[in-house]
Amino acid sequence: MKGFGSDNHSGVHPQLLSAMLAANIDHAPSYGSDPWTEKSLLAFENLFGKKVPVYFVYNGTAANVLSVRTLIKPWQSIICSDLAHLNVDECGAPEFFSGGKLLPLPSKNGKLQLSDLKNCLIRRGDQHFSQAKAISLTQPTELGTTYTTDEIMEITKWAHSEGLLVHIDGARIANAIVSLKTSFKAHLTDTGVDLISFGGTKNGLMFGEAVVFLNSALAQDFVFVRKQSAQLPSKTRFISAPFTTYIETGLWKEIADYTLNLTKNLAELVRDIPGVTITQPVQSNAVFARIPQKWVKPLREKYFFYVWDEKTFECRWMISFDTNQQEIEGFAQALRSLSSESNF
Amino acid sequence: MKGFGSDNHSGVHPQLLSAMLAANIDHAPSYGSDPWTEKSLLAFENLFGKKVPVYFVYNGTAANVLSVRTLIKPWQSIICSDLAHLNVDECGAPEFFSGGKLLPLPSKNGKLQLSDLKNCLIRRGDQHFSQAKAISLTQPTELGTTYTTDEIMEITKWAHSEGLLVHIDGARIANAIVSLKTSFKAHLTDTGVDLISFGGTKNGLMFGEAVVFLNSALAQDFVFVRKQSAQLPSKTRFISAPFTTYIETGLWKEIADYTLNLTKNLAELVRDIPGVTITQPVQSNAVFARIPQKWVKPLREKYFFYVWDEKTFECRWMISFDTNQQEIEGFAQALRSLSSESNF
Amino acid sequence: MKGFGSDNHSGVHPQLLSAMLAANIDHAPSYGSDPWTEKSLLAFENLFGKKVPVYFVYNGTAANVLSVRTLIKPWQSIICSDLAHLNVDECGAPEFFSGGKLLPLPSKNGKLQLSDLKNCLIRRGDQHFSQAKAISLTQPTELGTTYTTDEIMEITKWAHSEGLLVHIDGARIANAIVSLKTSFKAHLTDTGVDLISFGGTKNGLMFGEAVVFLNSALAQDFVFVRKQSAQLPSKTRFISAPFTTYIETGLWKEIADYTLNLTKNLAELVRDIPGVTITQPVQSNAVFARIPQKWVKPLREKYFFYVWDEKTFECRWMISFDTNQQEIEGFAQALRSLSSESNF
Amino acid sequence: MKGFGSDNHSGVHPQLLSAMLAANIDHAPSYGSDPWTEKSLLAFENLFGKKVPVYFVYNGTAANVLSVRTLIKPWQSIICSDLAHLNVDECGAPEFFSGGKLLPLPSKNGKLQLSDLKNCLIRRGDQHFSQAKAISLTQPTELGTTYTTDEIMEITKWAHSEGLLVHIDGARIANAIVSLKTSFKAHLTDTGVDLISFGGTKNGLMFGEAVVFLNSALAQDFVFVRKQSAQLPSKTRFISAPFTTYIETGLWKEIADYTLNLTKNLAELVRDIPGVTITQPVQSNAVFARIPQKWVKPLREKYFFYVWDEKTFECRWMISFDTNQQEIEGFAQALRSLSSESNF
Repeated sequence: MKGFGSDNHSGVHPQLLSAMLAANIDHAPSYGSDPWTEKSLLAFENLFGKKVPVYFVYNGTAANVLSVRTLIKPWQSIICSDLAHLNVDECGAPEFFSGGKLLPLPSKNGKLQLSDLKNCLIRRGDQHFSQAKAISLTQPTELGTTYTTDEIMEITKWAHSEGLLVHIDGARIANAIVSLKTSFKAHLTDTGVDLISFGGTKNGLMFGEAVVFLNSALAQDFVFVRKQSAQLPSKTRFISAPFTTYIETGLWKEIADYTLNLTKNLAELVRDIPGVTITQPVQSNAVFARIPQKWVKPLREKYFFYVWDEKTFECRWMISFDTNQQEIEGFAQALRSLSSESNF
Repeated sequence: MKGFGSDNHSGVHPQLLSAMLAANIDHAPSYGSDPWTEKSLLAFENLFGKKVPVYFVYNGTAANVLSVRTLIKPWQSIICSDLAHLNVDECGAPEFFSGGKLLPLPSKNGKLQLSDLKNCLIRRGDQHFSQAKAISLTQPTELGTTYTTDEIMEITKWAHSEGLLVHIDGARIANAIVSLKTSFKAHLTDTGVDLISFGGTKNGLMFGEAVVFLNSALAQDFVFVRKQSAQLPSKTRFISAPFTTYIETGLWKEIADYTLNLTKNLAELVRDIPGVTITQPVQSNAVFARIPQKWVKPLREKYFFYVWDEKTFECRWMISFDTNQQEIEGFAQALRSLSSESNF
Repeated sequence: MKGFGSDNHSGVHPQLLSAMLAANIDHAPSYGSDPWTEKSLLAFENLFGKKVPVYFVYNGTAANVLSVRTLIKPWQSIICSDLAHLNVDECGAPEFFSGGKLLPLPSKNGKLQLSDLKNCLIRRGDQHFSQAKAISLTQPTELGTTYTTDEIMEITKWAHSEGLLVHIDGARIANAIVSLKTSFKAHLTDTGVDLISFGGTKNGLMFGEAVVFLNSALAQDFVFVRKQSAQLPSKTRFISAPFTTYIETGLWKEIADYTLNLTKNLAELVRDIPGVTITQPVQSNAVFARIPQKWVKPLREKYFFYVWDEKTFECRWMISFDTNQQEIEGFAQALRSLSSESNF
Repeated sequence: MKGFGSDNHSGVHPQLLSAMLAANIDHAPSYGSDPWTEKSLLAFENLFGKKVPVYFVYNGTAANVLSVRTLIKPWQSIICSDLAHLNVDECGAPEFFSGGKLLPLPSKNGKLQLSDLKNCLIRRGDQHFSQAKAISLTQPTELGTTYTTDEIMEITKWAHSEGLLVHIDGARIANAIVSLKTSFKAHLTDTGVDLISFGGTKNGLMFGEAVVFLNSALAQDFVFVRKQSAQLPSKTRFISAPFTTYIETGLWKEIADYTLNLTKNLAELVRDIPGVTITQPVQSNAVFARIPQKWVKPLREKYFFYVWDEKTFECRWMISFDTNQQEIEGFAQALRSLSSESNF
């Protein structure tokens, strides 16, 4: 049964599975010194337009918290939005791994505002106050919205002028690149971003994310950080091989294009249904909408999804690589039925 | 190219790969609430002869350090052998995750001795001294040797009488069970072991290990420990499904039997070669042997392996599920050639 | 030179210094097993109306962060006000020591509101979300205001009904007790508070704070927590002896009475000066007031104080045990002069 | 009652107490920006023969663990002797604060041997192995012995050639300097030591130790490390003022001279008593000796001391600044009586 719960409810994309199967031959050195992993570096180099240290870890939490461990010392803070996965969905892992502090700021449609960033930079050099040292931007945000390339650039420039580093939580980064009709190079390399959690699992991989060091100086001790954090995969080839395929064949673009279109379709199909209020701009692979509380149960019996806010009944409908047009039409139809049964 | 470097140089066993492929259908709830994961609990229940909380994590380091986090508080110690993977191969991860201390003791053929355990239990209740609270036994040990069921029982009984908990680092636990001609139930459940890092990756799985709580009270907060430690797999089904197959079809036994026989074969084939000294009893899937330093390079050009001790040139030759008789014969032949070219 | 910077800018109260000198005889067992420390337990017992485990540490940061280490596990959170010393003045120490998370909430005159507490208790049992387990109330607050006994009681009752523990950051707890005309027993023991950081340094001690376990079960492992946190004083008698004097002679009441009166005097003297706006109720030993920015420099040249908010020029004027009437009059006079020179 | 338990069983030296009293005037900026603390920097500069960053903390545990936090990253190790206070008397604090690993080596009369140091430097750059980055030498050692200046020099030179930093746990460093008839400059600055825990409490101070950065580059972030570690004293003047007196008046030398002579006296008085075996060279302010088990109880009733090794009944008799000749004669007499009552 398929639903709109999360893009990690889907399985593995057939092309990526094929890449894994193809890597299952003979013996290979473990812990990332295999030829598949070496080859994947080239794929990232092409994508980002320059040589970049890339390290694979098992999941998105790991990519994020190892990034935090890399960016801040324990007496420093990393700024993120109050909605950031880092802040509300990692069970305190960033603090646990880094020993440091999160500095959550209010967000607008999930996005940090430069003015808020500027205001929070207080008490520099005051030994009593955890010192802000980095910013983490989720792109696309937890609400499915995207920072424009200009916004990324502006934040990064300001951050660097203040001695702050910039991290992108890119669990669904491909979706943002496609939605913004930009490239990894233009959007991330050229804007001066320092470090990226580059997601795979939510775009059809089985497991594994890449930590991409656009600022290569930060990579210096990362192999030790990764190993000590229990994130060094022994049979790395089964992560790197599908990643190479994902990048080199353009599958990242194909999937993100496909889900963006479906997502926009879904939004259009439901936008005018009485009782449904779309709450966020649709800029990646999720529709956020408020519906009447009593619709939730019958709707979830047909198509699973999450209630994002248990007070307003804002819901999240997420599109996966394997969602199809028929399913979103069925879902819209189910909404329409509930609406017509109600007093709208 | 195949060699004797490690049992994680091999890929994925075909039967286990099939189980993964079979799980790649439709959508499934993520984070372990899928039906494959539920089913795997039954497999573990049958194996251990009782209901046991089981949690999957990504790798052996994680299974070990999350076990340590579970067993000791930061002001406590866990006793292990000086050779333990925990002590010398985890880059300080146990200390990092637990905040506590390792208490490494000298070992005999890789095994902790009860008399040494008794001697190290000093300064109980002294606030200046990190308090021993648990023991970790590697089974089979890093030297390929095994504790007998009686030894496990004796250590566990004593440990419990002193208020200590017992952990098994079972990265290759199936190999020990087979070598000792015992069962998981008799060897681990009935001896009173509290917690097991139950390995899969070194026996043909792609990735994933299971933390098995024979002492179920210890599992109370483990879901939070796991998530905060960045070890909660989103698409858990791809770990649990092959684990179920591994256990239910008896593949664990089949592989361990096969590698044990090959390993013994290899030992017999090289034991009498002048220049080769087998240094450890052969009780699982590794042969340890000293060879002349000058043999190392030419031998490794043909068959990769690790020099275990860079001072004595004790080497480790490890047998994987996909090693075959021809390869061990080829290796023995290569040794024999080197020997005959030398002055033995 | 004396000013209004902080109640830790003053030295040691003569009576407390005498108590330290009197303890400087002969040899005494170190690390808290001396007779002075034993005697101090009785003083606390009398104050709180029941036997309470009490442990001395060096400073307020330590009392707070060791309390946090005691109250939450790393995957849990402690709720505090956004202005709490824990949140903004400990350089990330609570996160560092506990491995857990702070959950800062907006405050009203420095005080947490029960309705906000109730609203923040979300996602109970969700493994992705750090679980709230405790609340820390600063009493008096960082803004010099106090929770009433009823408010403490109400919060504590609700907290316990939800499985949360309650901590008081009582760096200046005596000032609150006196201001509220209550007793330690009525205000803290009888309201069900679990754990207190009981301050001394800001009321005339040289150094040292007491961690008081009204909930004695929480004290179980605290000697190890304290030692491992580098907070076990070797010559404890020089902390415990003055603490006993502070409590048994009623000096705590005398000092807090004296400073409360002076503080109210100061507030009255300046309240009507044009250009001065008192911003917080005066309920302990601090006056908070906004003044024109240009007054700050000339005023601080005469009497040092801190600008609390660098944007609104809200200032904090703090009264110490050794502040005198003449000084507050001089300060009020200085303000009056600045006012008359301005356009008010 | 006085005994030979520890040099922290004694109280405060009268001259140092006077210095504290003299600092108890007026208000002073807190957290170390007071004039007494500023002045103390000059005292350290004179002692070490160059400007050195110096930071005060509360106790020896803190000086040590904050040094460790400074010297190693979590994925690194610090080498120390198996008897080091760091290893066996800090309740796991070094691991807790640093997140890193201790690498304890066997010692000879409490001293690390260069050959052992060289042997333990293995697996450099291997991501699986916690990387040695520093050495901690206790001077004088936990057994009252001293490294010569040449030994310190030799170890430091080698350490630096290997990229390792050198820390001195100098809880009783003055005793070593006096015993070796050297100076702080010759023994520590000129030998290239990087970082020192400079003890005060065990030489007559009430509390407080100094972390002295001979390698000033290491001090860069130390104010934040100290604050976050809960070791920033608010009324720092009461630590820095007596420290200045201790150094500037030569009291450090006077006390250490005095206790060294008494200690040697004690050793001579008991050396030939049948049943007493002095076990360590007498090179600071402690005598280590084995005595028959049955003597312990009656002897400790008169003069408290610690049994160092509960298996061999090696005891430690420690001389304080306030021990007198009469007391050591009384103690020797008590031993002599026990001896004559026994079968020697």
